Amino acid sequence: MKFAVFNWKGRAYVGRVINNGSAMECLDLPGDSAAREGVVSLIGRPLPSVLETVAMEEVELLAPVPRPARNIFCVGKNYHEHAHEFAASGFDSSAAKGAVPEAPIVFSKLPETVVSPGAAIRLDASVSTAIDYEAELAVIIGTSGRNIAKKNALDHVWGYTIVNDVTARDLQGYHSQWLIGKSQDTFCPMGPWAVTADEIDLADTSVKCWVNDELRQDSNTGLLIFDIPTIIAAISNGITLQPGDVIATGTPAGVGIGFNPPKYLQPDDKVRIEIGGIGTLENPVEAY
Amino acid sequence: MKFAVFNWKGRAYVGRVINNGSAMECLDLPGDSAAREGVVSLIGRPLPSVLETVAMEEVELLAPVPRPARNIFCVGKNYHEHAHEFAASGFDSSAAKGAVPEAPIVFSKLPETVVSPGAAIRLDASVSTAIDYEAELAVIIGTSGRNIAKKNALDHVWGYTIVNDVTARDLQGYHSQWLIGKSQDTFCPMGPWAVTADEIDLADTSVKCWVNDELRQDSNTGLLIFDIPTIIAAISNGITLQPGDVIATGTPAGVGIGFNPPKYLQPDDKVRIEIGGIGTLENPVEAY
Repeated sequence: MKFAVFNWKGRAYVGRVINNGSAMECLDLPGDSAAREGVVSLIGRPLPSVLETVAMEEVELLAPVPRPARNIFCVGKNYHEHAHEFAASGFDSSAAKGAVPEAPIVFSKLPETVVSPGAAIRLDASVSTAIDYEAELAVIIGTSGRNIAKKNALDHVWGYTIVNDVTARDLQGYHSQWLIGKSQDTFCPMGPWAVTADEIDLADTSVKCWVNDELRQDSNTGLLIFDIPTIIAAISNGITLQPGDVIATGTPAGVGIGFNPPKYLQPDDKVRIEIGGIGTLENPVEAY
Repeated sequence: MKFAVFNWKGRAYVGRVINNGSAMECLDLPGDSAAREGVVSLIGRPLPSVLETVAMEEVELLAPVPRPARNIFCVGKNYHEHAHEFAASGFDSSAAKGAVPEAPIVFSKLPETVVSPGAAIRLDASVSTAIDYEAELAVIIGTSGRNIAKKNALDHVWGYTIVNDVTARDLQGYHSQWLIGKSQDTFCPMGPWAVTADEIDLADTSVKCWVNDELRQDSNTGLLIFDIPTIIAAISNGITLQPGDVIATGTPAGVGIGFNPPKYLQPDDKVRIEIGGIGTLENPVEAY
Protein backbone atom coordinates (compact mmCIF):
# COMPACT_ATOMS: atom_id res chain seq x y z
CA MET A 1 0.00 0.00 0.00
CA LYS A 2 0.98 3.64 -0.56
CA PHE A 3 0.27 6.34 2.01
CA ALA A 4 0.52 10.08 1.49
CA VAL A 5 0.33 13.03 3.87
CA PHE A 6 -1.42 16.15 2.59
CA ASN A 7 -3.38 19.27 3.33
CA TRP A 8 -6.96 19.37 2.18
CA LYS A 9 -9.59 21.94 3.12
CA GLY A 10 -7.41 23.51 5.79
CA ARG A 11 -6.19 20.48 7.72
CA ALA A 12 -3.62 17.71 7.42
CA TYR A 13 -4.50 14.12 6.60
CA VAL A 14 -2.82 10.79 6.10
CA GLY A 15 -4.40 9.04 3.15
CA ARG A 16 -4.13 5.80 1.25
CA VAL A 17 -3.11 6.44 -2.35
CA ILE A 18 -5.46 4.68 -4.79
CA ASN A 19 -6.20 4.49 -8.51
CA ASN A 20 -2.55 4.78 -9.59
CA GLY A 21 -2.01 7.91 -7.57
CA SER A 22 -5.02 9.81 -8.88
CA ALA A 23 -6.94 9.80 -5.58
CA MET A 24 -6.58 9.44 -1.81
CA GLU A 25 -8.70 7.85 0.85
CA CYS A 26 -8.48 10.23 3.84
CA LEU A 27 -7.95 8.26 7.04
CA ASP A 28 -9.52 9.00 10.40
CA LEU A 29 -6.53 10.37 12.34
CA PRO A 30 -6.15 13.65 14.27
CA GLY A 31 -4.91 16.51 12.06
CA ASP A 32 -2.05 17.43 14.38
CA SER A 33 -0.53 13.93 14.35
CA ALA A 34 -0.97 13.75 10.57
CA ALA A 35 0.86 17.09 10.23
CA ARG A 36 3.73 16.16 12.52
CA GLU A 37 4.16 12.38 12.39
CA GLY A 38 2.64 11.74 9.00
CA VAL A 39 2.69 8.06 8.08
CA VAL A 40 4.40 7.24 11.40
CA SER A 41 0.99 7.70 13.00
CA LEU A 42 -0.08 4.51 11.17
CA ILE A 43 2.63 2.34 12.70
CA GLY A 44 1.63 -0.32 15.22
CA ARG A 45 -2.15 0.17 14.98
CA PRO A 46 -4.98 -1.10 12.78
CA LEU A 47 -5.59 0.92 9.63
CA PRO A 48 -7.96 3.79 10.53
CA SER A 49 -11.30 3.96 8.78
CA VAL A 50 -11.76 5.97 5.58
CA LEU A 51 -13.46 9.34 5.99
CA GLU A 52 -13.68 10.41 2.39
CA THR A 53 -12.04 9.97 -1.02
CA VAL A 54 -10.46 13.02 -2.68
CA ALA A 55 -8.80 13.59 -6.04
CA MET A 56 -5.02 14.07 -6.04
CA GLU A 57 -5.28 17.45 -7.72
CA GLU A 58 -7.33 18.77 -4.81
CA VAL A 59 -4.65 18.16 -2.20
CA GLU A 60 -1.30 19.74 -1.33
CA LEU A 61 1.20 16.96 -0.66
CA LEU A 62 3.37 17.10 2.46
CA ALA A 63 6.39 14.94 3.21
CA PRO A 64 5.35 11.44 4.37
CA VAL A 65 7.27 12.03 7.64
CA PRO A 66 6.91 15.82 7.92
CA ARG A 67 8.93 16.12 11.12
CA PRO A 68 10.99 13.07 12.10
CA ALA A 69 11.28 12.69 15.89
CA ARG A 70 15.05 12.89 15.69
CA ASN A 71 17.71 13.52 13.07
CA ILE A 72 17.51 11.44 9.91
CA PHE A 73 20.18 8.76 9.69
CA CYS A 74 22.07 8.89 6.39
CA VAL A 75 24.63 6.60 4.78
CA GLY A 76 27.49 8.06 2.75
CA LYS A 77 29.36 6.62 -0.25
CA ASN A 78 27.19 3.52 -0.48
CA TYR A 79 27.32 2.79 -4.25
CA HIS A 80 30.65 1.75 -5.81
CA GLU A 81 30.59 4.14 -8.76
CA HIS A 82 29.62 7.03 -6.51
CA ALA A 83 32.40 6.19 -4.03
CA HIS A 84 34.84 6.32 -6.92
CA GLU A 85 33.50 9.59 -8.41
CA PHE A 86 33.66 11.12 -4.93
CA ALA A 87 37.28 10.05 -4.45
CA ALA A 88 38.20 11.22 -7.96
CA SER A 89 36.67 14.65 -7.26
CA GLY A 90 39.45 15.27 -4.72
CA PHE A 91 36.77 16.11 -2.13
CA ASP A 92 38.63 14.75 0.88
CA SER A 93 41.08 12.11 1.99
CA SER A 94 38.74 9.43 0.62
CA ALA A 95 41.15 8.45 -2.10
CA ALA A 96 43.99 7.98 0.38
CA LYS A 97 41.81 5.79 2.58
CA GLY A 98 40.51 3.76 -0.36
CA ALA A 99 37.45 4.99 -2.21
CA VAL A 100 35.15 2.24 -0.97
CA PRO A 101 34.44 2.40 2.78
CA GLU A 102 35.14 -0.63 4.98
CA ALA A 103 31.98 0.03 7.03
CA PRO A 104 28.82 2.08 6.54
CA ILE A 105 29.53 5.81 6.91
CA VAL A 106 26.63 7.09 9.01
CA PHE A 107 25.86 10.75 9.68
CA SER A 108 22.68 12.73 10.27
CA LYS A 109 20.48 15.54 8.95
CA LEU A 110 18.32 17.72 11.21
CA PRO A 111 14.58 16.84 11.18
CA GLU A 112 13.68 20.41 10.18
CA THR A 113 15.49 20.01 6.84
CA VAL A 114 12.48 18.03 5.57
CA VAL A 115 10.38 19.81 2.93
CA SER A 116 7.35 18.71 0.91
CA PRO A 117 7.19 17.48 -2.69
CA GLY A 118 7.20 20.60 -4.86
CA ALA A 119 8.68 22.83 -2.14
CA ALA A 120 11.76 24.85 -2.98
CA ILE A 121 15.32 23.81 -2.22
CA ARG A 122 16.75 27.18 -1.17
CA LEU A 123 20.22 28.29 -2.23
CA ASP A 124 21.76 30.87 0.10
CA ALA A 125 24.76 32.16 -1.84
CA SER A 126 26.07 33.83 1.31
CA VAL A 127 26.42 30.38 2.88
CA SER A 128 27.32 27.96 0.06
CA THR A 129 28.06 28.03 -3.65
CA ALA A 130 28.38 24.26 -4.08
CA ILE A 131 24.95 22.76 -3.49
CA ASP A 132 24.42 19.25 -4.78
CA TYR A 133 21.54 16.77 -5.16
CA GLU A 134 21.58 13.13 -4.00
CA ALA A 135 18.73 10.78 -4.94
CA GLU A 136 18.18 8.13 -2.25
CA LEU A 137 15.86 5.35 -1.17
CA ALA A 138 14.89 5.97 2.47
CA VAL A 139 13.80 3.36 4.99
CA ILE A 140 11.09 4.07 7.58
CA ILE A 141 11.53 1.92 10.70
CA GLY A 142 8.40 0.23 12.06
CA THR A 143 9.51 -1.62 15.17
CA SER A 144 12.17 -0.72 17.67
CA GLY A 145 15.25 -2.80 18.27
CA ARG A 146 18.85 -2.78 19.48
CA ASN A 147 21.65 -5.01 18.22
CA ILE A 148 19.41 -6.19 15.38
CA ALA A 149 20.86 -9.13 13.45
CA LYS A 150 21.05 -8.78 9.66
CA LYS A 151 18.79 -11.77 9.16
CA ASN A 152 15.99 -10.09 11.15
CA ALA A 153 16.61 -6.53 10.01
CA LEU A 154 13.89 -6.28 7.38
CA ASP A 155 11.29 -7.27 10.02
CA HIS A 156 11.94 -3.81 11.53
CA VAL A 157 11.12 -1.93 8.32
CA TRP A 158 7.65 -0.41 7.96
CA GLY A 159 8.18 1.05 4.51
CA TYR A 160 10.14 3.23 2.12
CA THR A 161 10.11 6.68 0.59
CA ILE A 162 12.36 8.92 -1.52
CA VAL A 163 14.64 11.61 -0.14
CA ASN A 164 16.90 14.10 -1.82
CA ASP A 165 19.93 14.32 0.49
CA VAL A 166 20.81 17.86 -0.63
CA THR A 167 24.36 18.76 0.36
CA ALA A 168 26.50 21.90 0.55
CA ARG A 169 29.80 20.35 -0.64
CA ASP A 170 31.92 23.30 0.54
CA LEU A 171 30.53 23.11 4.10
CA GLN A 172 30.65 19.30 4.08
CA GLY A 173 34.38 19.48 3.51
CA TYR A 174 35.15 22.58 5.58
CA HIS A 175 33.67 21.19 8.80
CA SER A 176 35.14 17.68 8.31
CA GLN A 177 32.12 16.03 9.92
CA TRP A 178 29.13 16.37 7.61
CA LEU A 179 26.26 17.55 9.83
CA ILE A 180 26.38 21.25 8.85
CA GLY A 181 26.78 20.67 5.10
CA LYS A 182 23.90 18.17 5.15
CA SER A 183 21.51 20.04 7.47
CA GLN A 184 21.01 23.39 5.76
CA ASP A 185 17.39 24.57 5.89
CA THR A 186 15.26 22.93 3.11
CA PHE A 187 17.91 20.28 2.34
CA CYS A 188 15.70 17.19 2.67
CA PRO A 189 12.87 17.01 0.14
CA MET A 190 10.89 13.83 0.91
CA GLY A 191 8.04 12.09 -0.87
CA PRO A 192 5.86 11.97 -2.86
CA TRP A 193 4.52 9.38 -0.42
CA ALA A 194 5.60 6.24 1.42
CA VAL A 195 5.07 2.64 0.38
CA THR A 196 4.84 -0.34 2.69
CA ALA A 197 7.80 -2.70 2.74
CA ASP A 198 6.10 -5.42 0.67
CA GLU A 199 5.96 -3.12 -2.37
CA ILE A 200 9.74 -2.87 -2.86
CA ASP A 201 12.14 -5.46 -4.23
CA LEU A 202 15.41 -4.33 -2.68
CA ALA A 203 17.42 -6.48 -5.07
CA ASP A 204 16.09 -4.62 -8.09
CA THR A 205 14.69 -1.13 -7.61
CA SER A 206 15.70 1.65 -9.99
CA VAL A 207 16.96 5.00 -8.63
CA LYS A 208 17.04 7.85 -11.14
CA CYS A 209 17.55 11.58 -10.92
CA TRP A 210 17.15 14.33 -13.48
CA VAL A 211 18.24 17.94 -13.16
CA ASN A 212 15.93 19.80 -15.51
CA ASP A 213 15.72 17.26 -18.32
CA GLU A 214 19.21 15.81 -18.03
CA LEU A 215 19.38 12.31 -16.56
CA ARG A 216 22.19 12.54 -14.01
CA GLN A 217 21.76 9.45 -11.81
CA ASP A 218 20.63 6.08 -13.08
CA SER A 219 21.25 3.11 -10.82
CA ASN A 220 19.59 0.36 -8.84
CA THR A 221 19.39 -0.55 -5.16
CA GLY A 222 20.81 -3.95 -6.12
CA LEU A 223 24.15 -2.11 -6.43
CA LEU A 224 24.32 -0.81 -2.85
CA ILE A 225 27.70 -1.54 -1.22
CA PHE A 226 26.07 -2.08 2.20
CA ASP A 227 22.57 -3.44 1.75
CA ILE A 228 19.67 -2.40 3.95
CA PRO A 229 19.97 -5.29 6.45
CA THR A 230 23.66 -4.42 6.88
CA ILE A 231 22.84 -0.74 7.44
CA ILE A 232 20.15 -1.53 10.03
CA ALA A 233 22.49 -3.92 11.85
CA ALA A 234 25.26 -1.29 11.88
CA ILE A 235 23.09 1.56 13.18
CA SER A 236 21.35 -0.56 15.81
CA ASN A 237 24.70 -1.82 17.10
CA GLY A 238 24.43 -0.30 20.58
CA ILE A 239 21.70 2.15 19.53
CA THR A 240 17.97 1.50 20.00
CA LEU A 241 16.23 2.16 16.71
CA GLN A 242 12.70 3.51 17.10
CA PRO A 243 9.49 3.40 15.06
CA GLY A 244 9.51 6.39 12.71
CA ASP A 245 13.28 6.56 12.35
CA VAL A 246 14.21 7.46 8.78
CA ILE A 247 17.39 6.08 7.18
CA ALA A 248 18.56 7.48 3.83
CA THR A 249 20.55 4.68 2.26
CA GLY A 250 23.06 6.55 0.07
CA THR A 251 23.17 7.97 -3.43
CA PRO A 252 24.48 6.47 -6.69
CA ALA A 253 26.97 8.03 -9.11
CA GLY A 254 26.07 11.15 -11.06
CA VAL A 255 26.00 13.85 -8.39
CA GLY A 256 27.15 17.35 -9.33
CA ILE A 257 30.57 17.07 -7.70
CA GLY A 258 31.31 14.04 -9.88
CA PHE A 259 31.48 16.16 -13.05
CA ASN A 260 34.51 18.14 -14.15
CA PRO A 261 33.77 20.99 -13.72
CA PRO A 262 31.12 20.22 -11.06
CA LYS A 263 27.46 20.74 -11.97
CA TYR A 264 26.03 22.24 -8.80
CA LEU A 265 22.41 23.34 -8.44
CA GLN A 266 21.45 26.78 -9.73
CA PRO A 267 18.35 28.91 -9.14
CA ASP A 268 15.44 27.81 -11.37
CA ASP A 269 16.73 24.25 -11.72
CA LYS A 270 14.28 21.43 -11.08
CA VAL A 271 15.40 18.17 -9.48
CA ARG A 272 13.29 15.11 -10.24
CA ILE A 273 13.90 11.76 -8.56
CA GLU A 274 12.16 8.59 -9.58
CA ILE A 275 12.41 5.36 -7.61
CA GLY A 276 10.76 2.22 -8.99
CA GLY A 277 7.71 1.10 -7.02
CA ILE A 278 7.45 4.43 -5.18
CA GLY A 279 6.97 7.36 -7.55
CA THR A 280 8.44 10.74 -8.42
CA LEU A 281 9.72 13.49 -6.13
CA GLU A 282 10.24 16.84 -7.84
CA ASN A 283 11.49 20.06 -6.26
CA PRO A 284 12.41 23.43 -7.74
CA VAL A 285 15.57 25.25 -6.74
CA GLU A 286 15.27 28.89 -5.71
CA ALA A 287 17.58 31.57 -4.41
CA TYR A 288 17.01 32.31 -0.71
CA MET B 1 19.75 31.31 38.52
CA LYS B 2 20.05 27.52 38.55
CA PHE B 3 17.21 25.25 37.44
CA ALA B 4 16.95 21.51 37.96
CA VAL B 5 14.55 18.88 36.65
CA PHE B 6 13.58 16.12 39.04
CA ASN B 7 11.06 13.55 40.15
CA TRP B 8 9.37 14.12 43.47
CA LYS B 9 6.36 12.28 44.83
CA GLY B 10 5.66 10.51 41.58
CA ARG B 11 5.81 13.35 39.07
CA ALA B 12 8.39 15.47 37.27
CA TYR B 13 9.10 19.09 38.16
CA VAL B 14 11.32 21.91 37.06
CA GLY B 15 12.64 23.72 40.12
CA ARG B 16 14.85 26.65 41.00
CA VAL B 17 17.90 25.48 42.91
CA ILE B 18 18.34 27.49 46.13
CA ASN B 19 20.45 27.49 49.28
CA ASN B 20 23.65 26.37 47.54
CA GLY B 21 21.96 23.38 45.99
CA SER B 22 20.41 22.05 49.19
CA ALA B 23 16.80 22.75 48.16
CA MET B 24 14.52 23.36 45.18
CA GLU B 25 11.53 25.58 44.63
CA CYS B 26 9.11 23.46 42.57
CA LEU B 27 7.65 25.56 39.74
CA ASP B 28 4.08 25.46 38.48
CA LEU B 29 4.50 23.66 35.14
CA PRO B 30 2.74 20.55 33.77
CA GLY B 31 4.52 17.32 34.74
CA ASP B 32 4.69 16.03 31.17
CA SER B 33 6.49 19.10 29.84
CA ALA B 34 8.85 19.04 32.83
CA ALA B 35 9.65 15.38 32.10
CA ARG B 36 10.23 15.87 28.39
CA GLU B 37 11.41 19.44 27.83
CA GLY B 38 12.85 20.09 31.27
CA VAL B 39 14.31 23.60 31.57
CA VAL B 40 13.36 24.31 27.95
CA SER B 41 9.79 24.72 29.21
CA LEU B 42 10.99 27.91 30.99
CA ILE B 43 12.25 29.57 27.81
CA GLY B 44 10.36 32.59 26.48
CA ARG B 45 7.84 32.90 29.31
CA PRO B 46 7.70 34.53 32.74
CA LEU B 47 9.04 32.43 35.61
CA PRO B 48 6.18 30.20 36.86
CA SER B 49 5.08 30.60 40.44
CA VAL B 50 6.55 28.46 43.22
CA LEU B 51 4.38 25.57 44.39
CA GLU B 52 6.51 24.26 47.20
CA THR B 53 10.08 24.06 48.48
CA VAL B 54 11.69 20.62 48.83
CA ALA B 55 15.04 19.44 50.13
CA MET B 56 17.54 18.16 47.54
CA GLU B 57 17.82 14.78 49.23
CA GLU B 58 14.11 14.18 48.70
CA VAL B 59 14.27 14.42 44.90
CA GLU B 60 15.63 12.26 42.10
CA LEU B 61 17.48 14.49 39.63
CA LEU B 62 16.76 14.16 35.91
CA ALA B 63 18.78 15.68 33.08
CA PRO B 64 17.98 19.40 32.69
CA VAL B 65 16.91 18.70 29.06
CA PRO B 66 15.67 15.12 29.44
CA ARG B 67 14.78 14.68 25.77
CA PRO B 68 16.17 17.31 23.38
CA ALA B 69 13.80 17.94 20.44
CA ARG B 70 16.49 16.94 17.97
CA ASN B 71 20.02 15.53 18.06
CA ILE B 72 22.51 17.32 20.28
CA PHE B 73 25.07 19.35 18.34
CA CYS B 74 28.63 18.53 19.41
CA VAL B 75 31.99 20.09 18.59
CA GLY B 76 35.08 17.89 18.17
CA LYS B 77 38.74 18.65 18.88
CA ASN B 78 38.06 22.10 20.29
CA TYR B 79 40.90 22.45 22.82
CA HIS B 80 44.50 22.64 21.53
CA GLU B 81 46.01 20.07 23.89
CA HIS B 82 43.15 17.64 23.20
CA ALA B 83 43.51 18.09 19.43
CA HIS B 84 47.19 17.21 19.81
CA GLU B 85 46.61 14.17 22.08
CA PHE B 86 43.98 12.95 19.61
CA ALA B 87 46.36 13.27 16.66
CA ALA B 88 49.18 11.64 18.63
CA SER B 89 46.93 8.67 19.49
CA GLY B 90 46.94 7.71 15.81
CA PHE B 91 43.13 7.67 15.87
CA ASP B 92 42.60 8.86 12.31
CA SER B 93 44.06 11.03 9.59
CA SER B 94 43.98 14.01 12.00
CA ALA B 95 47.75 14.23 12.16
CA ALA B 96 48.06 14.31 8.37
CA LYS B 97 45.48 17.09 8.12
CA GLY B 98 47.06 19.09 10.95
CA ALA B 99 46.03 18.37 14.50
CA VAL B 100 44.14 21.63 14.99
CA PRO B 101 41.00 21.93 12.82
CA GLU B 102 40.60 24.93 10.50
CA ALA B 103 36.87 25.14 11.29
CA PRO B 104 34.60 23.76 14.02
CA ILE B 105 34.05 20.01 13.58
CA VAL B 106 30.33 19.57 14.22
CA PHE B 107 28.57 16.22 14.59
CA SER B 108 25.54 15.02 16.56
CA LYS B 109 24.36 12.62 19.26
CA LEU B 110 20.85 11.16 19.33
CA PRO B 111 18.47 12.79 21.86
CA GLU B 112 17.80 9.43 23.51
CA THR B 113 21.44 9.14 24.61
CA VAL B 114 20.67 11.58 27.45
CA VAL B 115 20.70 10.07 30.94
CA SER B 116 20.25 11.60 34.38
CA PRO B 117 22.88 12.52 36.96
CA GLY B 118 23.74 9.31 38.78
CA ALA B 119 22.41 7.06 36.00
CA ALA B 120 24.67 4.35 34.63
CA ILE B 121 26.82 4.69 31.54
CA ARG B 122 26.35 1.20 30.07
CA LEU B 123 29.23 -0.72 28.54
CA ASP B 124 28.15 -3.35 26.02
CA ALA B 125 31.29 -5.40 25.44
CA SER B 126 29.63 -7.03 22.42
CA VAL B 127 29.52 -3.62 20.75
CA SER B 128 32.60 -1.68 21.93
CA THR B 129 35.68 -2.23 24.07
CA ALA B 130 37.00 1.34 23.83
CA ILE B 131 34.55 3.58 25.66
CA ASP B 132 35.81 6.99 26.63
CA TYR B 133 34.62 9.99 28.69
CA GLU B 134 34.62 13.62 27.52
CA ALA B 135 33.79 16.43 29.97
CA GLU B 136 32.12 19.35 28.22
CA LEU B 137 30.37 22.64 28.81
CA ALA B 138 27.04 22.55 26.94
CA VAL B 139 25.09 25.56 25.66
CA ILE B 140 21.27 25.66 25.77
CA ILE B 141 19.86 27.93 23.04
CA GLY B 142 17.12 30.35 24.09
CA THR B 143 16.11 32.20 20.94
CA SER B 144 16.01 30.98 17.38
CA GLY B 145 18.17 32.39 14.64
CA ARG B 146 19.80 31.72 11.29
CA ASN B 147 23.07 33.19 10.03
CA ILE B 148 23.74 34.57 13.52
CA ALA B 149 26.70 36.97 13.64
CA LYS B 150 29.39 36.26 16.25
CA LYS B 151 28.81 39.58 17.93
CA ASN B 152 25.14 38.73 18.59
CA ALA B 153 25.61 35.03 19.27
CA LEU B 154 25.51 35.13 23.06
CA ASP B 155 22.10 36.85 22.90
CA HIS B 156 20.78 33.49 21.65
CA VAL B 157 22.04 31.56 24.69
CA TRP B 158 19.59 30.77 27.48
CA GLY B 159 22.03 28.94 29.72
CA TYR B 160 24.59 26.20 30.26
CA THR B 161 24.90 22.72 31.67
CA ILE B 162 27.44 19.88 31.81
CA VAL B 163 27.48 16.89 29.48
CA ASN B 164 29.68 13.85 29.32
CA ASP B 165 30.11 13.19 25.57
CA VAL B 166 30.76 9.47 26.08
CA THR B 167 32.30 7.92 22.97
CA ALA B 168 32.98 4.43 21.62
CA ARG B 169 36.40 5.14 20.05
CA ASP B 170 36.42 1.94 17.98
CA LEU B 171 33.03 2.70 16.38
CA GLN B 172 33.92 6.39 15.99
CA GLY B 173 36.86 5.40 13.81
CA TYR B 174 35.30 2.39 12.09
CA HIS B 175 32.34 4.33 10.68
CA SER B 176 34.42 7.38 9.72
CA GLN B 177 31.58 9.79 10.50
CA TRP B 178 31.07 9.88 14.27
CA LEU B 179 27.29 9.52 14.78
CA ILE B 180 27.28 5.82 15.72
CA GLY B 181 30.28 5.98 18.06
CA LYS B 182 28.79 9.01 19.83
CA SER B 183 25.14 7.90 19.99
CA GLN B 184 25.28 4.61 21.84
CA ASP B 185 22.45 4.20 24.37
CA THR B 186 23.26 6.02 27.69
CA PHE B 187 26.17 7.97 26.18
CA CYS B 188 25.08 11.47 27.20
CA PRO B 189 24.93 12.02 30.96
CA MET B 190 23.71 15.61 31.51
CA GLY B 191 23.34 17.77 34.60
CA PRO B 192 23.26 18.14 37.53
CA TRP B 193 21.19 21.19 36.48
CA ALA B 194 21.31 24.17 34.15
CA VAL B 195 22.43 27.70 34.95
CA THR B 196 21.28 30.85 33.19
CA ALA B 197 23.80 32.52 30.91
CA ASP B 198 24.62 35.36 33.33
CA GLU B 199 26.16 32.89 35.80
CA ILE B 200 29.03 31.79 33.55
CA ASP B 201 32.19 33.69 32.64
CA LEU B 202 33.12 32.01 29.37
CA ALA B 203 36.62 33.49 29.49
CA ASP B 204 37.40 31.70 32.73
CA THR B 205 35.38 28.64 33.66
CA SER B 206 37.14 25.51 34.90
CA VAL B 207 36.36 22.11 33.32
CA LYS B 208 37.56 19.09 35.33
CA CYS B 209 36.96 15.38 35.12
CA TRP B 210 37.89 12.57 37.46
CA VAL B 211 37.65 8.84 36.80
CA ASN B 212 37.32 7.32 40.23
CA ASP B 213 39.65 9.59 42.17
CA GLU B 214 42.16 10.30 39.43
CA LEU B 215 42.00 13.79 37.96
CA ARG B 216 42.10 13.21 34.21
CA GLN B 217 40.94 16.47 32.65
CA ASP B 218 41.74 19.90 34.06
CA SER B 219 41.24 22.84 31.76
CA ASN B 220 39.30 26.05 31.26
CA THR B 221 36.80 27.31 28.69
CA GLY B 222 39.15 30.24 28.10
CA LEU B 223 41.28 27.71 26.17
CA LEU B 224 38.63 26.71 23.59
CA ILE B 225 39.98 26.84 20.01
CA PHE B 226 36.61 28.02 18.67
CA ASP B 227 34.81 30.05 21.31
CA ILE B 228 31.05 29.84 21.83
CA PRO B 229 30.12 32.81 19.60
CA THR B 230 32.19 31.22 16.80
CA ILE B 231 30.47 27.86 17.29
CA ILE B 232 26.98 29.40 17.24
CA ALA B 233 27.82 31.41 14.10
CA ALA B 234 29.15 28.26 12.38
CA ILE B 235 26.16 26.06 13.22
CA SER B 236 23.58 28.71 12.35
CA ASN B 237 25.26 29.34 8.99
CA GLY B 238 22.34 28.22 6.83
CA ILE B 239 20.67 26.33 9.69
CA THR B 240 17.92 27.78 11.89
CA LEU B 241 18.87 27.22 15.51
CA GLN B 242 15.88 26.68 17.79
CA PRO B 243 15.12 27.29 21.47
CA GLY B 244 16.13 24.19 23.40
CA ASP B 245 18.94 23.19 21.05
CA VAL B 246 21.87 21.80 23.04
CA ILE B 247 25.45 22.33 21.85
CA ALA B 248 28.29 20.43 23.55
CA THR B 249 31.35 22.61 23.05
CA GLY B 250 34.19 20.08 23.03
CA THR B 251 36.40 18.36 25.58
CA PRO B 252 39.86 19.26 26.85
CA ALA B 253 42.94 17.01 27.00
CA GLY B 254 43.01 13.99 29.28
CA VAL B 255 40.54 11.60 27.65
CA GLY B 256 41.26 7.89 27.84
CA ILE B 257 42.54 7.57 24.28
CA GLY B 258 45.19 10.18 25.04
CA PHE B 259 47.05 7.80 27.39
CA ASN B 260 49.48 5.13 26.24
CA PRO B 261 48.08 2.54 26.69
CA PRO B 262 44.59 4.09 26.57
CA LYS B 263 42.59 4.28 29.81
CA TYR B 264 39.09 3.39 28.67
CA LEU B 265 36.11 3.11 31.02
CA GLN B 266 35.62 -0.13 32.90
CA PRO B 267 32.62 -1.51 34.80
CA ASP B 268 32.41 -0.02 38.32
CA ASP B 269 34.30 3.15 37.37
CA LYS B 270 32.77 6.46 38.37
CA VAL B 271 33.11 9.54 36.16
CA ARG B 272 32.82 12.91 37.92
CA ILE B 273 32.78 16.17 35.98
CA GLU B 274 32.96 19.55 37.67
CA ILE B 275 32.44 22.81 35.80
CA GLY B 276 32.94 26.09 37.66
CA GLY B 277 29.70 27.99 38.26
CA ILE B 278 27.54 24.97 37.44
CA GLY B 279 28.24 22.01 39.72
CA THR B 280 29.15 18.34 39.60
CA LEU B 281 27.86 15.59 37.32
CA GLU B 282 28.69 12.07 38.47
CA ASN B 283 27.77 8.81 36.76
CA PRO B 284 28.72 5.21 37.46
CA VAL B 285 29.83 2.84 34.71
CA GLU B 286 28.12 -0.55 34.51
CA ALA B 287 28.23 -3.55 32.20
CA TYR B 288 25.14 -3.82 30.01
